[in-house]
Amino acid sequence: MATTPTRDRIMEATAELFRRHGYTGTGIKQIVAAANAPFGSIYHHFPGGKEQLGGEVIRSSGEMYFQIFELIYEMSPDVITATENFYGGAAETLRQSDYADACPIATVALEVASTNEPLREATAEVFESWVTRGTERLIEGGIPPDRARPLIIAMLSLLEGAFVLCRASRTTEALEVAGELAVAKVREALATA
Amino acid sequence: MATTPTRDRIMEATAELFRRHGYTGTGIKQIVAAANAPFGSIYHHFPGGKEQLGGEVIRSSGEMYFQIFELIYEMSPDVITATENFYGGAAETLRQSDYADACPIATVALEVASTNEPLREATAEVFESWVTRGTERLIEGGIPPDRARPLIIAMLSLLEGAFVLCRASRTTEALEVAGELAVAKVREALATA
Repeated sequence: MATTPTRDRIMEATAELFRRHGYTGTGIKQIVAAANAPFGSIYHHFPGGKEQLGGEVIRSSGEMYFQIFELIYEMSPDVITATENFYGGAAETLRQSDYADACPIATVALEVASTNEPLREATAEVFESWVTRGTERLIEGGIPPDRARPLIIAMLSLLEGAFVLCRASRTTEALEVAGELAVAKVREALATA
Repeated sequence: MATTPTRDRIMEATAELFRRHGYTGTGIKQIVAAANAPFGSIYHHFPGGKEQLGGEVIRSSGEMYFQIFELIYEMSPDVITATENFYGGAAETLRQSDYADACPIATVALEVASTNEPLREATAEVFESWVTRGTERLIEGGIPPDRARPLIIAMLSLLEGAFVLCRASRTTEALEVAGELAVAKVREALATA
């Protein structure tokens, strides 16, 4: 579907509201106010309303977040440094956003898992795309193929779980622990190559 | 505060609704219906309304979940087996509950982190109590004291993150990866004792 400035603003505003308030806690009124868009524009661009908008925001936020991961892995000299940089960057973003900006879809994923099947599927697709493409990225970085998928799942679980603890505690202790363990696992997997 | 059958039913019904629908998605009407309690009984037992009830449910769910952890660690012959049993049990509960029953407070923790300071504090207190008491439990199991806190934080991050992935994907793959890594880290820490 073609993008327009209004459509883009709606998507961006919704993504930010989802990160801070979750899916259930985000209303159409808040979205139009934050996007500075006329009320009717939501249904013009997203005839399926909040659920359609939600699905598109989940997928596009997931894509943007993976691009950050890719960029860090491309710009780092090796997969160990990339992993350090990725967790370090996540901690820095969390602190700078007053512990609001963590995973763009985890809050929504937990909210919809048992209540909204189309949106659950959207979150599942995003996570699986991170795992599949992250696996490829790790293999390119020298991780043995049979170790790459469990490694990226462990890294992602550590990241998502640490985000829960860090947002609750307003400290980055868990992300530091998670990052150190992720780096150790990457190092260990490289050593078996 | 004294407990009564009605108060207990309200707490239990709310805890289950929070696990499935989150805090924002759970309304007082749903709670009274699920608890089979008169509408006014909520405000009789919880004069602070949904927020007070929410705080109490977060703390009591947190306490109950830690007791499951404690029970598994007490009944297992050693800390390695206990860790295997804990992650295995979490995966089994998830499957049996149709991927609904994971962490009792993570959904709420993410929802309230940037929006409700009293409830954020309640979730932070629960996580910190798990970490503090889990650290003690690991030390009793033979983990060197300087390794115990980062180890329990890693274990908890793995668990919480795997729950996000498993509830989204409706598979237990991430919990299996998380459990194996947790067991490996426990084994490694024991070897340095």
